[in-house]
Amino acid sequence: MAITGAPELLIVMGASATQDQVDEVIARLDEAGCSAFVTPGREATVIGAIGERELLATLPLEGFAGVEQVLPILKPYKLVSRELSPDPTVIEARGRRIGDGYFGFIAGPCTVETRDQTLETARAVAAEGVTMLRGGAFKPRTSPYAFQGLGDEALEILQEARAETGLPLVTELMDPRHVEAVVPVADVIQIGARNMQNFMLLAEVGRADKPVLLKRGPSASVEELLMAAEYVAREGNERIVLCERGIKTFERTTRYTLDLGSVAVLKHETHLPVIVDPSHAAGRRDLVLPLARAAAAVGADGIIVESHPSPEEALCDGPQQIPTAEFGEFAREVRQVAELLGKQIG
Amino acid sequence: MAITGAPELLIVMGASATQDQVDEVIARLDEAGCSAFVTPGREATVIGAIGERELLATLPLEGFAGVEQVLPILKPYKLVSRELSPDPTVIEARGRRIGDGYFGFIAGPCTVETRDQTLETARAVAAEGVTMLRGGAFKPRTSPYAFQGLGDEALEILQEARAETGLPLVTELMDPRHVEAVVPVADVIQIGARNMQNFMLLAEVGRADKPVLLKRGPSASVEELLMAAEYVAREGNERIVLCERGIKTFERTTRYTLDLGSVAVLKHETHLPVIVDPSHAAGRRDLVLPLARAAAAVGADGIIVESHPSPEEALCDGPQQIPTAEFGEFAREVRQVAELLGKQIG
Amino acid sequence: MAITGAPELLIVMGASATQDQVDEVIARLDEAGCSAFVTPGREATVIGAIGERELLATLPLEGFAGVEQVLPILKPYKLVSRELSPDPTVIEARGRRIGDGYFGFIAGPCTVETRDQTLETARAVAAEGVTMLRGGAFKPRTSPYAFQGLGDEALEILQEARAETGLPLVTELMDPRHVEAVVPVADVIQIGARNMQNFMLLAEVGRADKPVLLKRGPSASVEELLMAAEYVAREGNERIVLCERGIKTFERTTRYTLDLGSVAVLKHETHLPVIVDPSHAAGRRDLVLPLARAAAAVGADGIIVESHPSPEEALCDGPQQIPTAEFGEFAREVRQVAELLGKQIG
Amino acid sequence: MAITGAPELLIVMGASATQDQVDEVIARLDEAGCSAFVTPGREATVIGAIGERELLATLPLEGFAGVEQVLPILKPYKLVSRELSPDPTVIEARGRRIGDGYFGFIAGPCTVETRDQTLETARAVAAEGVTMLRGGAFKPRTSPYAFQGLGDEALEILQEARAETGLPLVTELMDPRHVEAVVPVADVIQIGARNMQNFMLLAEVGRADKPVLLKRGPSASVEELLMAAEYVAREGNERIVLCERGIKTFERTTRYTLDLGSVAVLKHETHLPVIVDPSHAAGRRDLVLPLARAAAAVGADGIIVESHPSPEEALCDGPQQIPTAEFGEFAREVRQVAELLGKQIG
Repeated sequence: MAITGAPELLIVMGASATQDQVDEVIARLDEAGCSAFVTPGREATVIGAIGERELLATLPLEGFAGVEQVLPILKPYKLVSRELSPDPTVIEARGRRIGDGYFGFIAGPCTVETRDQTLETARAVAAEGVTMLRGGAFKPRTSPYAFQGLGDEALEILQEARAETGLPLVTELMDPRHVEAVVPVADVIQIGARNMQNFMLLAEVGRADKPVLLKRGPSASVEELLMAAEYVAREGNERIVLCERGIKTFERTTRYTLDLGSVAVLKHETHLPVIVDPSHAAGRRDLVLPLARAAAAVGADGIIVESHPSPEEALCDGPQQIPTAEFGEFAREVRQVAELLGKQIG
Repeated sequence: MAITGAPELLIVMGASATQDQVDEVIARLDEAGCSAFVTPGREATVIGAIGERELLATLPLEGFAGVEQVLPILKPYKLVSRELSPDPTVIEARGRRIGDGYFGFIAGPCTVETRDQTLETARAVAAEGVTMLRGGAFKPRTSPYAFQGLGDEALEILQEARAETGLPLVTELMDPRHVEAVVPVADVIQIGARNMQNFMLLAEVGRADKPVLLKRGPSASVEELLMAAEYVAREGNERIVLCERGIKTFERTTRYTLDLGSVAVLKHETHLPVIVDPSHAAGRRDLVLPLARAAAAVGADGIIVESHPSPEEALCDGPQQIPTAEFGEFAREVRQVAELLGKQIG
Repeated sequence: MAITGAPELLIVMGASATQDQVDEVIARLDEAGCSAFVTPGREATVIGAIGERELLATLPLEGFAGVEQVLPILKPYKLVSRELSPDPTVIEARGRRIGDGYFGFIAGPCTVETRDQTLETARAVAAEGVTMLRGGAFKPRTSPYAFQGLGDEALEILQEARAETGLPLVTELMDPRHVEAVVPVADVIQIGARNMQNFMLLAEVGRADKPVLLKRGPSASVEELLMAAEYVAREGNERIVLCERGIKTFERTTRYTLDLGSVAVLKHETHLPVIVDPSHAAGRRDLVLPLARAAAAVGADGIIVESHPSPEEALCDGPQQIPTAEFGEFAREVRQVAELLGKQIG
Repeated sequence: MAITGAPELLIVMGASATQDQVDEVIARLDEAGCSAFVTPGREATVIGAIGERELLATLPLEGFAGVEQVLPILKPYKLVSRELSPDPTVIEARGRRIGDGYFGFIAGPCTVETRDQTLETARAVAAEGVTMLRGGAFKPRTSPYAFQGLGDEALEILQEARAETGLPLVTELMDPRHVEAVVPVADVIQIGARNMQNFMLLAEVGRADKPVLLKRGPSASVEELLMAAEYVAREGNERIVLCERGIKTFERTTRYTLDLGSVAVLKHETHLPVIVDPSHAAGRRDLVLPLARAAAAVGADGIIVESHPSPEEALCDGPQQIPTAEFGEFAREVRQVAELLGKQIG
């Protein structure tokens, strides 16, 4: 007893919904150029709505009288969906790659504190084979009394580090007014976790001609992360790397709970590369290596970690930065796992 | 284009599901005596399954090849559902009532520590018009090094307090082997939050002839709480009071996050009375009164709180117990809110 | 055996920390102009650090070798702390007040959709005695395919509504580049939940001469909310109203879990007024009234709710908007609870 | 300026605490045979309490007047702490080992459904080199309408599977009244996640002479898990394997959020072996392999997974069971990661 159609979502009418209320929903779907399949029942009537996703998204179906729930059948994202674009995306910056077999290995200081600290760190991580250099110029900090970054001066130092090591730069954009300063310098523009739903910023990087590293917000669902990526993609920029960095839960022994299950889900849901930041999730150095190995083993397309010549003097996130002196051993262990999974360092 | 039927759940087949996989699902539904309505589509085919809930619950539909998700249309609980039994349930014990306009006011010591402390507390709260006396004889404690309750001796003391005050007793059952000791003494049997999904215990109180106070587990959803109540009801005992006592979240300034939104949802979903325990959620005395007022204002059918003559000497939960000397003011403020909502103290 | 001093934080050295590591911490505190009290022990040595909070905040103590944990004794916020400024703050806009006995009652459309819808809603809520008018001109939306607000046109319409009703306007600032358009029009500038840690935006409103309504982020702790307020205050603007609007938890029957316990905590921690948004937490209309009553009963200084002439046609958040036709009854019930607590509608 | 002592916990007195309140705390510590170091300050006075942990645990310090917070310096667990017993524990059952370099590989059906299904699964996983056989005889189920296990009959079938394969049996104890039936049959007694704080059950297995597999509750913190293990150990049984199986968070694309960061923390905190159950966390088959690899890579001492000859016909957890036909490939990939970390299959 099959009926042809293409339901984008299902509207469940409550047990006490009247026939008039059912008819009203159908009429509104009709008006909007969508159609409806109705399956009435003893306790709940279900209406399958068929039509263009964008049209349906504008209908306030949940507010209609008698509607109990609206169940989406199709995912609300499109451009970033693997279902619609099965081929994996590879991001490239100055010859280094992330995605589809290329394991991105991004390291560097949490924050640019001084020229010496930055260059020393850059040299150390470059020597151990990392593929991109991270470093914060503008730092969002929870406390207004904490160090906020060197700003433009940091961008100068980062460029010097790039010139010396050849590593492409990953640095954060925090404010739409910094676009002119940051975008030309960055090789990959980072959107920080707290800005994952700063839609103004997402639109800006969606119009930039640089790859974007989009970090998951600490309370963002996998679906919200993909919707944030969709914002960027919709402006024309599909060179996006997603980054899991831990979510907020009741557990207090780690700063955030690194959600590697979501990395496995994302690899299934999207063609975009997915990397992991174990440093921020852990909040302490001794957990960064085990979590980085686990990230590689779950199938992530790379990691991003923090390193410092003397973490005990770091102005920011000292407890979680890997001492440059120990970085070689760290890199070796992570590389082994990535290679076991058939990846090549990008 | 309406079709008659009664879908209990919807089976969404993935975009890449084959016709054979769709047919296989339909065949299995047929075998089980259920029927199916199929709505095939461009990107997802939806099968509405129609049949007895208990039959459908035994089919492992999510494991079938090609199935992407199974969406229940009907709630998984039945006996406790307001949809099926619209009239509110009233629980009665020794003439005191909870539910349908009767506001249950349960107070007493966290734990029976001594005869004096228990009798003094019982007298104080009785004098301020509470309707039931709470008190723990057996205490589940997170640490094996903490005080575990006086056991049988506490049950003796509680009976003495009941004899003197006339208040019905609410006390916890922690172990199926204590049924013979606890059930005859208790007027209302409490199932603690950590035992909300101790299904063996739920079955025991389901066979008892006393009302049950079922506390929500700190990580239990509203639906899981209702399913736990369904376990009790299914054994024949529908005299159940649900109790919201806070859920586990990332927020640390309170011990648990009191979820009053769920109380409002429960009042909609079930005919059972719903009360609130503000003491355990707060974890500190100065928050108990505001949260108790809020519980009354959201529409709860009662509260359960802890009191002690000298909280600073309490062996358990001292910080959150209301000093008996302040109980009168506390009771007055809560009563005012309950009465504003048209409730009468039960 | 008392020692004089003023420890701002305690540094716990691990059981295996060496004397050299203890000495190193003390030396670094000395260098920074702070002093230290040491309590060595069998299994853990504790160092109390004494000095200016701002100085201590710059020391990366957690990164020092041998340090196991750093326990702050003083709260990290200062300007917004009730301990340091015990008198409650009252926010005023066009003669309407929030705080210290004045209950702010803010209502209006979720979003300005049309001139008619906005004016009709404004008139309806004004007639029922609300004290401020809310309305979104720029809307942050999870999906890029959803309605994003009318922008400047909406600001025009809101001003017309203000002219007609006399109600001060509460509207959201989403982008630092909108400061010139939004700040002069708004009477109270709203910072939305997703922007609670958009520190650039916080600095902007910290320099504005209008009161700020700061919404708690869905995964922000009470402490993070207060630190965000501290960002605003530190720029010179202490006219801040905090707003609880629900946090993200595992519970799915409400959109967010309204955390009224945190409202009680905030009333204790800060002199700033604290209001509650029950509409966004609930996500469905029938829960808004019970949660609004509970907010008033817990001691909140006001509420902010959404209303619409025909919620079933709303372009945004239809399911949770109160129909204007039912607004009178809603307002009456909330007012009764606020008055029971001795508040006067602001 | 060092003082000798051994503070077990720090008591922070509020800014407005009086000298009398400070003296009262000190007097109570004295009475209990503990001593105190006082560090008074401008805004907070800190009292370090020194004495036996068990004595201090009985003092209701948080309830004392003037006390703002009590900060434990030492961990509340002792027997399971790595600090006190640095050597890693190895669990052994019928010659198979878990811990200290031995990677436990436990597999088998979710539930014993029939003799054929169980024996077929046991043979298949044994052939691929697993080290222990899991299988549920009594099943805790969220819904009272779902299949609850075959009980004693299942225990018979499991013994037959053991006789044939030589694999030790891991099976769950749900009820203290089942001790006589389950303990003699089991080689390793499982305590399920929902029973992690069923203290009666913990005491029972603490008195049994079989190793215990203790699963983390879905809302239990690392500390609560260790306290539950302490309950078992304190009764005399220190042969405990801890098991991470996912915690409850807001994320919905996986059933639970597998918390591998906590595994890394546990390896640091305790000498007990720690294994991971990726099947229950994932809730879907395609995520089990990536999560199992990640578990091995983070340093877990083993995994426990579910397998079934035809998952689509399973009566329980079908979607997450690995088909026996695919088990060889699964085992090979997990083994490679474990061996890369220098582990040997136990």
